Amino acid sequence: MRIVVALGGNALLRRGEAMTSENQRENVRIAAVELAKVAPGNELVIAHGNGPQVGLLALQGAAHNPDNPFPLDVLGAETEGMIGYMIEQELGNLLPFEVPFATILTQVEVDANDPAFKDPTKPIGPVYSKAEAEKLAKEKGWAIKPDGDKFRRVVASPRPKRIFELRPIKWLLEHGTIVICAGGGGIPTVYDANRKLKGIEAVIDKDLCTALLAQDLDADLLVIATDVDAAYIDWGKPTQKAIARAHPDAIEALGFAAGSMGPKVQAACEFARATGKTAAIGSLAGIEAIAKGKGGTLISTAKPGIDYR
Amino acid sequence: MRIVVALGGNALLRRGEAMTSENQRENVRIAAVELAKVAPGNELVIAHGNGPQVGLLALQGAAHNPDNPFPLDVLGAETEGMIGYMIEQELGNLLPFEVPFATILTQVEVDANDPAFKDPTKPIGPVYSKAEAEKLAKEKGWAIKPDGDKFRRVVASPRPKRIFELRPIKWLLEHGTIVICAGGGGIPTVYDANRKLKGIEAVIDKDLCTALLAQDLDADLLVIATDVDAAYIDWGKPTQKAIARAHPDAIEALGFAAGSMGPKVQAACEFARATGKTAAIGSLAGIEAIAKGKGGTLISTAKPGIDYR
Repeated sequence: MRIVVALGGNALLRRGEAMTSENQRENVRIAAVELAKVAPGNELVIAHGNGPQVGLLALQGAAHNPDNPFPLDVLGAETEGMIGYMIEQELGNLLPFEVPFATILTQVEVDANDPAFKDPTKPIGPVYSKAEAEKLAKEKGWAIKPDGDKFRRVVASPRPKRIFELRPIKWLLEHGTIVICAGGGGIPTVYDANRKLKGIEAVIDKDLCTALLAQDLDADLLVIATDVDAAYIDWGKPTQKAIARAHPDAIEALGFAAGSMGPKVQAACEFARATGKTAAIGSLAGIEAIAKGKGGTLISTAKPGIDYR
Repeated sequence: MRIVVALGGNALLRRGEAMTSENQRENVRIAAVELAKVAPGNELVIAHGNGPQVGLLALQGAAHNPDNPFPLDVLGAETEGMIGYMIEQELGNLLPFEVPFATILTQVEVDANDPAFKDPTKPIGPVYSKAEAEKLAKEKGWAIKPDGDKFRRVVASPRPKRIFELRPIKWLLEHGTIVICAGGGGIPTVYDANRKLKGIEAVIDKDLCTALLAQDLDADLLVIATDVDAAYIDWGKPTQKAIARAHPDAIEALGFAAGSMGPKVQAACEFARATGKTAAIGSLAGIEAIAKGKGGTLISTAKPGIDYR
């Protein structure tokens, strides 16, 4: 089975945790233990978020030289190297030496006229108090938005249109390589007036990009890994129920929140509709069960309606 | 012809130039124009240095949080993403859309007992006055060494033993992909007592790593690109002469300086001896002529002695 997994950037650097190299590596190590369970006998592609990491790099650059910030596309490229390295090394340590690995830098085309550029929504970097966030927004020209009871910097999150390194990724999969790619939703790029590709200040939603990747790779299963074991209705209420299986039409009708489960549901539905295959939302700890069709929230067009667990 | 090119880290961010993203990109653009000339009809692998870049990332991290520096292996992974991205995008803009590209994160095994760890020699980051450098050495526990009339931080530069991502790189070349890899000489790693791979604080010489890469890939030509058009005897004197062609034994006997041309000559000689093929040292602007055997300093075992230009 060809499995494409999307790892959350927050799963790699947990909210509230100090943004150290050691903490990131420890979280990657935990993720690798789960990923190693589905590697044997399957083709595995691992994509990942980079929200906290790209925010950290932006802060590091600003602390050193506030007048010459590195643009988000370049910071995104740095995080693909950093996170890809940790995943490749830690997962590699759990699998036989013979298993080939490749971390592939991934550029993704977006539309310069995407409406997202007029309404930044993607949180990056650490959380701040309201007062801190408003001060930074004024000083640095950031857009900020509430995130729970805190605030974060937000940037535009345009839709991914095309993944440039698709052919190399396919060729490597055909050779049995575990491929780590599309980090942070891929590096956002656009063609300029002279048909030259260039980076653009944005962060592509990693779930939408991974769904596009899974679709283009003819994946059998897309797994969107998050910190809960499934999508729930009435989340946090006494009536909460886990969704075991849903048709895209049925789960979309529930109206999940844009800031949390919404983009994951959207990405899963897009993959399920485009391919007729299954997309799953669940915890990484449940990935083995998900791959067997026995865990997470499984979304496919095979059957209408919703089943709860 | 399968050509492996090593680009100098200083060629990507010139000495004395402000370490901005724009300056790096401009230099990459200049390099890409030359690389584009040898891409058609050849298999092309591009390796690159990262000395200035890894030093900059270390300074950025220290400015933001001096108590939790990211280790050099992680910073090296970041630079592979950043520099690889710029090379892939700028070279891609000069070649037909159909040419596939892949930037591959590269881990390299070194020996934890390599004597280099007892005598750090590899300069990274910006140049400092003697007083500044001595202050930083005291504050941060750095090793420092003179570099021209200035000083720089130096770290251990162990020999590369094994390139882990060799098979994916080969497979991609067989599909006509231009591969960017082994950035910064690869990420230095060692096996610990439990046979787990982990990063280590070091920077591998990018010329030696590229020579090993070229050897393992059965390259027809290794090009070590630098800021002079050839290796010279009596450099800077009225008697200076460019070396057009040399046997490894003959050029090694000249005793080039460890800090500048020495490692390039050593890397070229290692490749030439191991393979019987040609290694060239020259400027990127001369790469077209070098590929035709008409420029740079060409080193091979085919003929004894030295010819001057």
